[in-house]
Amino acid sequence: MSSEEPLQNPPSEENPEKKLSKKELAKLERQRKRQEAAAAASAAAGVSGVTLETEDPLAANYGDVPLNDLQSKEISGKKWTEVKDLTNELKDQVVLIRGRAQAIRAVGKKMAFLVVRERGFTVQCVLTVAQDVVSPQMVKFATSLSRESIVDIEGVISVPTQPITGASQQVEIQVRKLYCVNKAVPALPINIEDAARSDLEIEKALQAGEQLVRVNQDTRLNFRVLDMRTPANQAIFRIQCQVENIFRQFLLSEGFVGIHTPKLIAGSSEGGSAVFRFDYKGTPACLAQSPQLHKQMSICGDFGRVFEVGPVFRAEDSFTHRHLCEFTGLDVEMEIKEHYSEVMDIVDRLFVTMFDSLNEKCSKELEAINRQYPFEKLKYLRKTLRLTFEEGVQMLKEAGVEIDPLGDLNTESERKLGQLYWRMDVFGGIYHIGMLNCRYGTEFYILHRYPLAVRPFYTMPCHDNPKYSNSFDVFIRGEEIISGAQRVHVPEFLTERAQSLGIDVKTISTYIDSFRYGAPPHGGFGVGLERVVMLFCALNNIRKTSLFPRDPQRITP
Amino acid sequence: MSSEEPLQNPPSEENPEKKLSKKELAKLERQRKRQEAAAAASAAAGVSGVTLETEDPLAANYGDVPLNDLQSKEISGKKWTEVKDLTNELKDQVVLIRGRAQAIRAVGKKMAFLVVRERGFTVQCVLTVAQDVVSPQMVKFATSLSRESIVDIEGVISVPTQPITGASQQVEIQVRKLYCVNKAVPALPINIEDAARSDLEIEKALQAGEQLVRVNQDTRLNFRVLDMRTPANQAIFRIQCQVENIFRQFLLSEGFVGIHTPKLIAGSSEGGSAVFRFDYKGTPACLAQSPQLHKQMSICGDFGRVFEVGPVFRAEDSFTHRHLCEFTGLDVEMEIKEHYSEVMDIVDRLFVTMFDSLNEKCSKELEAINRQYPFEKLKYLRKTLRLTFEEGVQMLKEAGVEIDPLGDLNTESERKLGQLYWRMDVFGGIYHIGMLNCRYGTEFYILHRYPLAVRPFYTMPCHDNPKYSNSFDVFIRGEEIISGAQRVHVPEFLTERAQSLGIDVKTISTYIDSFRYGAPPHGGFGVGLERVVMLFCALNNIRKTSLFPRDPQRITP
Repeated sequence: MSSEEPLQNPPSEENPEKKLSKKELAKLERQRKRQEAAAAASAAAGVSGVTLETEDPLAANYGDVPLNDLQSKEISGKKWTEVKDLTNELKDQVVLIRGRAQAIRAVGKKMAFLVVRERGFTVQCVLTVAQDVVSPQMVKFATSLSRESIVDIEGVISVPTQPITGASQQVEIQVRKLYCVNKAVPALPINIEDAARSDLEIEKALQAGEQLVRVNQDTRLNFRVLDMRTPANQAIFRIQCQVENIFRQFLLSEGFVGIHTPKLIAGSSEGGSAVFRFDYKGTPACLAQSPQLHKQMSICGDFGRVFEVGPVFRAEDSFTHRHLCEFTGLDVEMEIKEHYSEVMDIVDRLFVTMFDSLNEKCSKELEAINRQYPFEKLKYLRKTLRLTFEEGVQMLKEAGVEIDPLGDLNTESERKLGQLYWRMDVFGGIYHIGMLNCRYGTEFYILHRYPLAVRPFYTMPCHDNPKYSNSFDVFIRGEEIISGAQRVHVPEFLTERAQSLGIDVKTISTYIDSFRYGAPPHGGFGVGLERVVMLFCALNNIRKTSLFPRDPQRITP
Repeated sequence: MSSEEPLQNPPSEENPEKKLSKKELAKLERQRKRQEAAAAASAAAGVSGVTLETEDPLAANYGDVPLNDLQSKEISGKKWTEVKDLTNELKDQVVLIRGRAQAIRAVGKKMAFLVVRERGFTVQCVLTVAQDVVSPQMVKFATSLSRESIVDIEGVISVPTQPITGASQQVEIQVRKLYCVNKAVPALPINIEDAARSDLEIEKALQAGEQLVRVNQDTRLNFRVLDMRTPANQAIFRIQCQVENIFRQFLLSEGFVGIHTPKLIAGSSEGGSAVFRFDYKGTPACLAQSPQLHKQMSICGDFGRVFEVGPVFRAEDSFTHRHLCEFTGLDVEMEIKEHYSEVMDIVDRLFVTMFDSLNEKCSKELEAINRQYPFEKLKYLRKTLRLTFEEGVQMLKEAGVEIDPLGDLNTESERKLGQLYWRMDVFGGIYHIGMLNCRYGTEFYILHRYPLAVRPFYTMPCHDNPKYSNSFDVFIRGEEIISGAQRVHVPEFLTERAQSLGIDVKTISTYIDSFRYGAPPHGGFGVGLERVVMLFCALNNIRKTSLFPRDPQRITP
């Protein structure tokens, strides 16, 4: 196996001392490097290097890798193994890994334990002083490493008889070589163990009289580069990637085309409210609040069925657990042949496929999240429950909540109140989950035929009652996650609808004009990627599912 | 086959005239609808409806569909066929299609031809007056349709003995029913035939004494919703989708994680130059010029290998064929074990896989583009050619172009001149294509080890010569398309590099700090999605591969 070769580079061919044997040359070279590294380490303020009390014949087996060796000096052809792949099938084999020194523990002067982590997976590495392999100086070097430093380790895989509790992998590495590739500062602002701890663990410890550190959300975000390294966060963002991937693959298999629409918009998208404004070469402009207009234009442009994955910008002052100023929108728009249920059919099959796939392919990731943030698996039906808004009213009535479904929704102020009331208090929240979950055994369902007054001007009214609309919202665990509808595709009627809501038609003329050249009936929906992940995993804050969240109080890091 | 049912809705169950037979009821209902539609059409200013001179017993077989019928009135279960699927296997079958009336031609009063287009595919539809099927009034209705209107057509597939030249599908539809779903305005700002015409066709016609309309790029973009409908544009954006899809699938199969980094940035990304600035809740902010810093932070955050597909914003005043103010960046960042060639290996295999897949899976789309914009298939090798910058200098020397490879690149002004000279004039352009194409038979190659002075401060210098760097550019057809490099992962050295280039270290402290908690050696690259498509298809302007391009003079539609 090639990984048994020395980890350091052999001397270069330009070496003038040609009389020495290759082995001797290699030794000299290694010594030189170690000395250079030690000198560099001592010079670096605040980081103490290895003290060279006595000459160590095993010096070439450990030390700091000089920068020059990391500047793409050589392609050695060595085989690297990932920590996640370290299993007992590799017993007695020599492996080479790169990872972080997550935890370091000395046992006297002759032994040290090192937990090395790579992409959320950990392995226990053991240094034991032994002639010709590990010197006491090497153990000292190991215990002097700062946590989170990047290390290269070569060693032999052993399989302990007892289960290993402090690492994910159930094998140990008996270390032969240990090099530090890049140091972390000795005092980290947050410790990974602290950031990875569940609330339950903290409470249990407290009951046992021990006060453990709890890292709050803001501190996590301030040092996101460290926070990201916890097993739960490694899992959350791998699941996010999978959600997007299933979204794309499902839609591609259904004949959709992925598009990219501009985020730089003249005027304000959807005609108003909280947008980020800026100057575009002397023209007033803003950031797209949604790809709504352009995805509809793409339907008018004959793409038939389109989707987009891209950032969406909202300058709203909402400071809640579920709002961000920038999030990743998953948007869909499609021709409708006859009925907006064609759009709901896509939603239904897309999300059932997605949930199935996540449960099947991401079990390790879901377990990792569950360990820190325990949650119940999402309940959903093979065929997604669809209720009309009116049926919802009836259900509430039966439950003793009497509501006039339209009476209160006529004026602007009441519209907002009504929307809030309907969406959040009545159909959202615990009450709602309880009701539908008990009756139908699902935490994922579609509510459709919303009152027209609470939907945007471009929403198609119902054919049989203009007070309702061909629209729907989708809920996961009682929170609204998707909004969708059939759109008005006739320019004259679109103008009429906009005017009736007091929208200045001039500001949306580009939009309306794009329907003048023949527009097919169509509809679509939008959903936030971060919300899907948050609600699927029952996390309590959308900041946990955004890599670098932006809210009214945060624009860094 | 369900498509033999009548296209219009049967009367609703609420119909009070219960003594009439179902058939009679249906007839009455159809008449009512047609009359409603005709009245609505007459009322609409500028659009003349069908003149009802005499009562037509076949009136239910054609007409304008009233809006109410398009408001999701009913799910009929009818089977729709896509135009692209109309082949001679369907001979003698009844099909139902929805598309656009692309071209309409009357032959006397008893016959009409209608070319119907759906998503770039076209079929010829024939109306012939025949008792109990097609009336003279129906032919008149057909010929009165405005081009680009959306129509529903039911008819029988026939296979003519002669090849059809005016449509993509080699079958005809013998029309039985024809309904207009949504009208286009009678005078279109550009005609699809004009927009779809090749320059060659225009020149040929000119030689024959005929002046055909040439639609210029700006007009196309002003009416993008129409321009998008040409076969070439339908193909271009389907290829763009495929490029992104291969990019993602290849990287996912190599263990990369797809991420989303913020576009709203405090300060300016990469420390300066042409950014779009705006106010973020009272804080100065800007739009990300690249995901560089955040993708590197994700590597420091243990994701190992990441990619991102997202918008990139450049407020530059470049008004060239290859620059946009907003484009879709395909970005990659990955841990390096030993050498930046690991990154070039990914580039190599990714793009060879991509080109193979495009040639294999998108042949129809490539043909469609070729018809309007003829181009030669891209030449590339199974293993991508890699030349060092120094080898390039040597090649130029042999070709009689003498250049001091470093001498002129020491000061800022010379750096720019040098960069321009090296990248565009010497290695770019026709001269370069000719040279490498002739010698190696490839139009796709990697040039690496660029002078350090022409690369960003975070580029890792070469281990053996600090005047060169561990960086590379990739060229397609002589134009630079990808820039990549190993990054400096040691914070002290990164600070030193920034300072030596006069960058105020305070402005990039978040960036540098993220390397203080242990950063692995890493590298990556970035490429513009629009450029890949443009150069693969040898298109002459990047505005052709951006759905809604943004340049210094354009922020609409």
